Amino acid sequence: MRELFQQELSEVQERLVDLSSTVTEIMEKASAAFLNSDVKKADEAIALSEINEERALLIDEMAIRILTKQAPVARDLRVLVAALRISASLERMGALAGHIATIARFRYPESAVPKSLVKTFTEMGQLDVALGKKLSKLLKNTDLDLARTIQAEDARVDELHRSVFETVLSPKWKENALHTVDVTLASRYHERFADHVVDISAKVAYLTTGEWSEIDS
Amino acid sequence: MRELFQQELSEVQERLVDLSSTVTEIMEKASAAFLNSDVKKADEAIALSEINEERALLIDEMAIRILTKQAPVARDLRVLVAALRISASLERMGALAGHIATIARFRYPESAVPKSLVKTFTEMGQLDVALGKKLSKLLKNTDLDLARTIQAEDARVDELHRSVFETVLSPKWKENALHTVDVTLASRYHERFADHVVDISAKVAYLTTGEWSEIDS
Repeated sequence: MRELFQQELSEVQERLVDLSSTVTEIMEKASAAFLNSDVKKADEAIALSEINEERALLIDEMAIRILTKQAPVARDLRVLVAALRISASLERMGALAGHIATIARFRYPESAVPKSLVKTFTEMGQLDVALGKKLSKLLKNTDLDLARTIQAEDARVDELHRSVFETVLSPKWKENALHTVDVTLASRYHERFADHVVDISAKVAYLTTGEWSEIDS
Repeated sequence: MRELFQQELSEVQERLVDLSSTVTEIMEKASAAFLNSDVKKADEAIALSEINEERALLIDEMAIRILTKQAPVARDLRVLVAALRISASLERMGALAGHIATIARFRYPESAVPKSLVKTFTEMGQLDVALGKKLSKLLKNTDLDLARTIQAEDARVDELHRSVFETVLSPKWKENALHTVDVTLASRYHERFADHVVDISAKVAYLTTGEWSEIDS
């Protein structure tokens, strides 16, 4: 019974790792689509985000089935509850990246990103992708140092998010309302994506240390 | 044992109902703050959203403690897992309403809402508050008809959300970038708030019918 349980738990973990890879791939495609008006990548990102949603639901069902069948206690239980929350975050991350692709899709053949913000959104996209990759690693092997570098990178994303508003609200900003709406939402989606990575890493750290305060700030 | 468990379960439910009332109150204050540049209400909403976050975490801890101690199976287990998800949604709803209040706070003494959108945001705020009240009722007593009216009201919020973009992107829109950013984000926050109500009502319906397809569309 115990062995079967561990096997099932490993499968949930593997699927979460897979999901985080898919989410990173969606963000990679969405960022490229957004920066280069690449409609093919946008469509791929949107299609993947739909698949991602279904897969997240499947993990939920699997975790609930294990909970029902095995009635685990203590740490095992905490792991499964954390898995449910992590899959919810991964589902949202895929949706957020999908929204960025949708903006690119709607503006095509024009670009959604004004020149003055190309550098900022390039860095934001790279950071989100890097965060996604670190998240996969973290879900594979808990590593508290990694959880800490994740927090530092999220802080940089927040900084870039604020800088988008500074650009948009400066007297130099001459773009039309469409651009203003696009970059406001795209910046928010990038920032929320990174937030979810931090949330998940806090949950992983919690499972390891039993202390929320250890990493969740 | 069974009796104690039911008692604990009722307490979780009561706390979720309380949380949904708080969330509704935050939205009520945030909407008033946003529409009337009422800085006092904005501060109250922001303070309440912080309290709301702490309370949501307390419910999570309580649900996990029950799961650990009682190792419930079947329906009881599903109820507790649903409670965890519902509290996560309620926490986000409080944060979203808090963000609306923060926009009002930042723009004070000026108004964040241009005249052309006062009517739209008034209706959006009213709908979100009405949805919050229905949610409290639904969490108190499961009622599938109520879950369906919730979906209809959410559809209206989505419609208003789209109409904000139509207004902002029409040639008549002469407001500055600051207003464009404010109304874009505020509209998104109102829309996400309503989305969470629909998510929760789908979970409640699921607990009742055992079928996601019954209400979750």
